[in-house]
Amino acid sequence: MEYQVFDTTLRDGGQREGISYSVADKLAVAKLLDEFGVGFIEGGWPGAMPKDTEFFARARTELDLKNAVLVAFGATRKANVDVAADPQVQALLDAETPVVCVVAKSDIRHVERALRTTGDENLAMVRDTVRHLVASGRRAFVDCEHFFDGFRHDPEYTASVVRTAIDAGAERVIMCDTNGGMLPSMITKAITEVVERTGVSADLLGIHCQNDTSCAVANTVAAVEAGVKHFQCTANGYGERPGNADLFATVSNIQLKLGLQVLPDGCLEKATRVSSALAEIANIAPDTHQAYVGAAAFAHKAGLHASAIKVDPLLYNHVDPSVVGNDMRILVTEMAGRASIELKSRELGIDLAGHPDTLSTVTQRVKDLEAGGWSFEAADASFELLVRDELLDGKLARPFSLESYRVQVEHRENGSVVSEATVKVRVRGERVIATAEGNGPVNALDEALRAALTQSYPQLKNFELTDFKVRILEGSHGTNAITRVLLETGDGDRDWTTVGVHENIVEASWVALVDALTYGLAEQS
Amino acid sequence: MEYQVFDTTLRDGGQREGISYSVADKLAVAKLLDEFGVGFIEGGWPGAMPKDTEFFARARTELDLKNAVLVAFGATRKANVDVAADPQVQALLDAETPVVCVVAKSDIRHVERALRTTGDENLAMVRDTVRHLVASGRRAFVDCEHFFDGFRHDPEYTASVVRTAIDAGAERVIMCDTNGGMLPSMITKAITEVVERTGVSADLLGIHCQNDTSCAVANTVAAVEAGVKHFQCTANGYGERPGNADLFATVSNIQLKLGLQVLPDGCLEKATRVSSALAEIANIAPDTHQAYVGAAAFAHKAGLHASAIKVDPLLYNHVDPSVVGNDMRILVTEMAGRASIELKSRELGIDLAGHPDTLSTVTQRVKDLEAGGWSFEAADASFELLVRDELLDGKLARPFSLESYRVQVEHRENGSVVSEATVKVRVRGERVIATAEGNGPVNALDEALRAALTQSYPQLKNFELTDFKVRILEGSHGTNAITRVLLETGDGDRDWTTVGVHENIVEASWVALVDALTYGLAEQS
Repeated sequence: MEYQVFDTTLRDGGQREGISYSVADKLAVAKLLDEFGVGFIEGGWPGAMPKDTEFFARARTELDLKNAVLVAFGATRKANVDVAADPQVQALLDAETPVVCVVAKSDIRHVERALRTTGDENLAMVRDTVRHLVASGRRAFVDCEHFFDGFRHDPEYTASVVRTAIDAGAERVIMCDTNGGMLPSMITKAITEVVERTGVSADLLGIHCQNDTSCAVANTVAAVEAGVKHFQCTANGYGERPGNADLFATVSNIQLKLGLQVLPDGCLEKATRVSSALAEIANIAPDTHQAYVGAAAFAHKAGLHASAIKVDPLLYNHVDPSVVGNDMRILVTEMAGRASIELKSRELGIDLAGHPDTLSTVTQRVKDLEAGGWSFEAADASFELLVRDELLDGKLARPFSLESYRVQVEHRENGSVVSEATVKVRVRGERVIATAEGNGPVNALDEALRAALTQSYPQLKNFELTDFKVRILEGSHGTNAITRVLLETGDGDRDWTTVGVHENIVEASWVALVDALTYGLAEQS
Repeated sequence: MEYQVFDTTLRDGGQREGISYSVADKLAVAKLLDEFGVGFIEGGWPGAMPKDTEFFARARTELDLKNAVLVAFGATRKANVDVAADPQVQALLDAETPVVCVVAKSDIRHVERALRTTGDENLAMVRDTVRHLVASGRRAFVDCEHFFDGFRHDPEYTASVVRTAIDAGAERVIMCDTNGGMLPSMITKAITEVVERTGVSADLLGIHCQNDTSCAVANTVAAVEAGVKHFQCTANGYGERPGNADLFATVSNIQLKLGLQVLPDGCLEKATRVSSALAEIANIAPDTHQAYVGAAAFAHKAGLHASAIKVDPLLYNHVDPSVVGNDMRILVTEMAGRASIELKSRELGIDLAGHPDTLSTVTQRVKDLEAGGWSFEAADASFELLVRDELLDGKLARPFSLESYRVQVEHRENGSVVSEATVKVRVRGERVIATAEGNGPVNALDEALRAALTQSYPQLKNFELTDFKVRILEGSHGTNAITRVLLETGDGDRDWTTVGVHENIVEASWVALVDALTYGLAEQS
């Protein structure tokens, strides 16, 4: 690819208040970004953050990327230290990524006041670090922090950082609008001046924009129009303060409006799905009004123009929604349509094409459930159970049936907190009662249910709940709200995800738990 | 004012899914927009919408605007009808606003396919309607729908609509990017060509952008840079699909970045307050990451650079937050150091500079707690209690103390799910036991605790849990993991957020709940 799409969701995106990725989350995010076709995935700062160190270690064996290469992020060497003796720089090499991106100060004021060193030493830090990385077989990128503010304040110093990095062997020097104060016209003008002053071609420059003027996407596009071939984004614009340039809007604008191909064929249409999966992992409610990929991005209030829209949809949409994997919506309805249900079922190995009635009832059930807060987007196992149940007219075999359960959490006088659950179930014709303790109410319920079922289903021993996500849905108040629980379960060979929704978090978890065991046991039998 | 700031929150903004203003809401919105200093408030479509007709009627007696004039929105006359006999046009006059803004088709394809009339008749509709409005003493603005798409498809026809409107006496002709597909460079180029082709000065043109490329703010700013003196926005960018150009970011960019005064003196600093009041009225959760006015717009993860930020805040903010009425916030995070703790405390009104020992113990406690999964980033109230408790050597007065609690969730044989909690507490020297039911375990606990305390603290009745967030932390497996709960509580005047962390979700919620009541009762006493 002539253009470098550089994603920093896992590094700069993680700066957003409230995001805290586990290592497993990071691996899942990287897989999705690779599917979307970005060329570079900045995974974190090894050495500085233990989780990031672990991510890069596990990525070496667990990730099989098709489009992207991994990038380790770090800083130039410390002032007045030999680069080979700087443990932070060594940690970047230890991450064993093909690309390393180091941040450098490029505003003389930050060099002097934050770094407390001299302009010359800062240049030496850039030079030594880049040379060291290149000599160690790495492709080196340099993020110039506070680039535009620095260039306005002292253009010659900032230009000297660019030249130093390129002369030392950096593949790209990235102009970062760290404080996010730029407008597109200012970006265009600055890039022209930078190229003139440094003699460095725009081909070798990159752009990284923050959204503090609400112009991060526009600024990034303006830089590409000015000749820059490398741009840094985050999925859904996650990032510190108002965030970064949104990957999906930026790439869509560049491909669809400027006509420059920056993703491999067939990738752009994954935008909507990948965006929403990434929101799920970040545990941030998707922005329904997000450009291109939001649920409402192509939603038209029906009315006067409904028939005109039907005849001539392209007169009312700036692009065909399907090119980014989105749909046009005319009425205010939930997302599910027959076509997507059929497609999704086929993906799971169930052909509904020959069962139009089942397709209708499944579509209706999904619509009704989604209106009540359910979401099957990330819960394939629950969706598959629903479809199989409809195909059997509601007679899908269940491994057990519930009579009742009771969960108790006690905070005792001595300060200890104890959870205990009792379940009463029917399994293979017998009534079984079991009681267990746990670390919390859902864990106790899980333990009690396993205790009740393990004699009949010894394979349950291999099942492990690997992830548990709780989302409180909006629209109601405080603890009185609807809760959605996603459970991920694994048996060593594969993982599956189930969903439960209820106003009571324990019952929502129970519903997801029952689906998890039903699905796992059916798969194995 | 040389520039016309034209707000259409009440008309185009109301197209956003989920917004439904009452007439009282509309009057309140208009007052706030006037306070913010916009020049024009488009109030709705009288005649077409009964609520809008009533709004204009009540506005005449109930609104006393200082900066703005009201605008009635409507359409050009119907095809093949005498303008004086068109009831829709008459309703615009009946609204008795000084300004009327009519939408006209300016893309020949929409004229022919949606309006089903000829290009010439459409021009006559524009001419007749504008003349009639002007003859009736109104200032007439014309919104050219699908302007940019039309101009690209058939520049001469679109240009003829502009000329017709101006020749008929329109004060402004507004170029609308109705489908929202433009980029800033395309706007700049189109405006140059429009001025050239029509001979109409850019001074007489206006701009209205939708956000489908995530560039609405940038596009509006680009139009102003190209000479346009009238721009249309909505508060917080509310509008159909991805919305409109956000009034606050647009105006801030134009005043602060381009240096053009578009609001009366003293108005811009109301941006943050007006934005959040308008979100309240629209009943949409404020976007904490919104540029300029969001709660996180100037939030910095302190850590390494805290000391530099303290010395030189403007090196880390693209503008001084106070110019838009916002504040810089320091987030207490994993990398918390003494400097950021001191800064954060000062923000909360506690000066730790003279208490170096307390500063040390607070820093250590925060570090220890954050290592255990706590996060004070979004929980100022819990952080403040922690600091105040340390200042008093752990002797902060508590409104009650816990002996024990017990929560039970039962899924009964009849399928009903019931939650019940019992708390035993000491309050003002007495032992109180109370039991309550709830929709879930935490709700039941909240109800029981209130039942136990309300006699001693009747002000508790005003406390409401307004938000409840649950995050399962990594590091352990599935339901066996650490849970972090964030609770937002309000008493009608203010909101505060508290945090609790425990392996048991009920206990984590309890901890946050206790902090919430402790903080709220301390503030009130």
